[in-house]
Amino acid sequence: MSTAVGAEVLCIGTELLLGNIVNGNARWLAEQLAALGIPHFRQEVVGDNRERLIAAVQAAAGRCRVLITTGGLGPTPDDLTTEAMAAAFSTPLREWPEVWEDIQAKISARGRSVAPSNRRQALLPEGAALLPNPTGTAPGMIWSPRPGFTILTFPGVPSEMRAMWAATAEPWLRQAGLAEGVFASRLLRFWGVAESSLAEQVSDLLALSNPTVAPYAGAGEVKLRITARAADAQAAAALLAPVEADLRARTGSLCYGSDDDSLASVVLERLRQRGETLAVAESCTGGAIGAALTAVPEASTVFLGGVIAYANSVKRDGLGVAEALLNTHGAVSDPVAIAMAEGARRVIGSTWAVAVTGIAGPGGGTAAKPVGLVHVAVAGPDGCESEGIHFGASRGRHWIQTLACGEALQRLRLRLG
Amino acid sequence: MSTAVGAEVLCIGTELLLGNIVNGNARWLAEQLAALGIPHFRQEVVGDNRERLIAAVQAAAGRCRVLITTGGLGPTPDDLTTEAMAAAFSTPLREWPEVWEDIQAKISARGRSVAPSNRRQALLPEGAALLPNPTGTAPGMIWSPRPGFTILTFPGVPSEMRAMWAATAEPWLRQAGLAEGVFASRLLRFWGVAESSLAEQVSDLLALSNPTVAPYAGAGEVKLRITARAADAQAAAALLAPVEADLRARTGSLCYGSDDDSLASVVLERLRQRGETLAVAESCTGGAIGAALTAVPEASTVFLGGVIAYANSVKRDGLGVAEALLNTHGAVSDPVAIAMAEGARRVIGSTWAVAVTGIAGPGGGTAAKPVGLVHVAVAGPDGCESEGIHFGASRGRHWIQTLACGEALQRLRLRLG
Repeated sequence: MSTAVGAEVLCIGTELLLGNIVNGNARWLAEQLAALGIPHFRQEVVGDNRERLIAAVQAAAGRCRVLITTGGLGPTPDDLTTEAMAAAFSTPLREWPEVWEDIQAKISARGRSVAPSNRRQALLPEGAALLPNPTGTAPGMIWSPRPGFTILTFPGVPSEMRAMWAATAEPWLRQAGLAEGVFASRLLRFWGVAESSLAEQVSDLLALSNPTVAPYAGAGEVKLRITARAADAQAAAALLAPVEADLRARTGSLCYGSDDDSLASVVLERLRQRGETLAVAESCTGGAIGAALTAVPEASTVFLGGVIAYANSVKRDGLGVAEALLNTHGAVSDPVAIAMAEGARRVIGSTWAVAVTGIAGPGGGTAAKPVGLVHVAVAGPDGCESEGIHFGASRGRHWIQTLACGEALQRLRLRLG
Repeated sequence: MSTAVGAEVLCIGTELLLGNIVNGNARWLAEQLAALGIPHFRQEVVGDNRERLIAAVQAAAGRCRVLITTGGLGPTPDDLTTEAMAAAFSTPLREWPEVWEDIQAKISARGRSVAPSNRRQALLPEGAALLPNPTGTAPGMIWSPRPGFTILTFPGVPSEMRAMWAATAEPWLRQAGLAEGVFASRLLRFWGVAESSLAEQVSDLLALSNPTVAPYAGAGEVKLRITARAADAQAAAALLAPVEADLRARTGSLCYGSDDDSLASVVLERLRQRGETLAVAESCTGGAIGAALTAVPEASTVFLGGVIAYANSVKRDGLGVAEALLNTHGAVSDPVAIAMAEGARRVIGSTWAVAVTGIAGPGGGTAAKPVGLVHVAVAGPDGCESEGIHFGASRGRHWIQTLACGEALQRLRLRLG
């Protein structure tokens, strides 16, 4: 047992092995463990299979001090987690009457009838403590079947897992003495630069050991994660600060924000400071720029709205784009993008407007205007600029739409200075 | 070796263990393996750590016939996959001159300079075959370090991994004789029903063993996955068909589609058949309904566009919502939702329009109109209907916006009959 260290995550569900769903729970738990400073070197996924589940739990018991499981706590026959855990350590199950009452009350409150199968959810191994589920029916457990090894079980439903984590598991883990110091991390976000080119610019920092600096590429976005480990939060922050300052100094305006910032949130914040407003005119993005902006709480103080001008008739009637422009240059052109942006600014009455018109594919491309060509315009008090950008066809419609959204917001950001 | 079976997936990257990114590659690979009928009982994630990587590969060699890895093929010092694989089986690396030339050509074509570190990407273990990377610089390998055990390595960049899979790995796996029969599956999609209530309705089918039927809950959506296993595709399809027919007969209009359908794609298809068109008027969803519609290829034959009426001024000036309505009932009300939908229909000139106005939070709620209240209206040739729906505040802004989008499309779908 003495070599066992940190926490492992075991996600249970055949739907994960069939690829039906992405394992968002593993990502979320990983993030929580990092924030708590608990070492986490391994994640595993197994299906709803009793033997493999037992083998996975027994193997983990020799490697880690805490095993966090998700899934398999429901009432259906393929929910095997609790039973398999008990079997792995030859421990009988016992029913918790108060849990069974709670389950019946919750199901009745939803106007549904209690099924006999729900009663299985009130069983826990002898000696286990309850990990209460405030929102759903399936409770989890905190159980140490052996000295120095504890299992925490959660349902697979993300909202229930998160609520249980916050209410019970996180406080328990803070007390459990698993943390080896504290991790602190800072994510710097970049737009308009390739990962390899950014990595070359900061290659000496990528070789650091504490803090570490690691690059990640996303859809159009590149991120640098700085991670420091120290005895306490203050010391970790002190390690982060100079590296962050160095990175920001080297990369200048390429770095648009940090941590939970998005291009949308950064643009909204800058406009809020300036007391200015924004509108959108979207053709091939179909509303995605507006959706990105309104994903940010309090967007309404800056973002007024816009026109989704997918059909040419809407570009003409909704934004005042001249028929002659559409006929002469085509809908995917700088003159039309400019007329859309200026039209949105005028129609909506905003300080600024961004417009996007392009060919997201897979159909509709020509030799002169291939799939992936998008014209992006930004109109403001000091005029309107537009440019045609080739995103390429190979990565598909969603990629083109995502990059077009980002480019529109990025160009506005740079115009705002 | 004789007990080794199927394929395992090993994803390599500290960013996964820090929770920086979700493991979308694991989901995608799982889906591909299921479609090929290759058993897949286990997924694992380890960080950029040489010792743990070697241990994970050696352990997998005793359990499975094919190990598929993602990540760690880049040029930076934390890219350790190829080197660790070679070390795990005491095999020297050798440089592939043609790969090094290809890497230099690709980097130069992007107008960037070749870094010495890129040369590491041209190294493969002795005896490995190349798994070419058509789009990126990092190639993978197909390597059998022991009889009956083959490693396939892929970069972590999803688009590169997918292109390499399709071009080389999938054909290789089809020839490799790993498939134990064929899996076929059908996903039925439901809106407007709780997972538990749907599960009760079909509980006898959830107990089947071939095909299996399993429920999954998403954001507002519930899915039932039917999975059959048989000697060939035709036999698997024959197992699926009667269960699908039974499920559809029991659930009626609750089932809106199957497989890759979305509410948006189903609504667009139905309108296309009817030769009708659609517009949107979006307040609290900010363009997300339009974005969902335009995510579907060929949406332009049906979806004309709309107005993002986030500010009241845009509801008034862009959609013709009377000031008196806004003052009397407030922006979040049935009369305003109806005026928005009818305004969009009139302004855009479409057969149908959907409108959404609500309080996505976290701010802006009152006792009478709490966060999570959304009014959804559908206007068409036969009139306009609106209803206020309470989604609750507890799951947050994005949840409320997602459910509001779905409700708008669902109500239109039901109106279309």
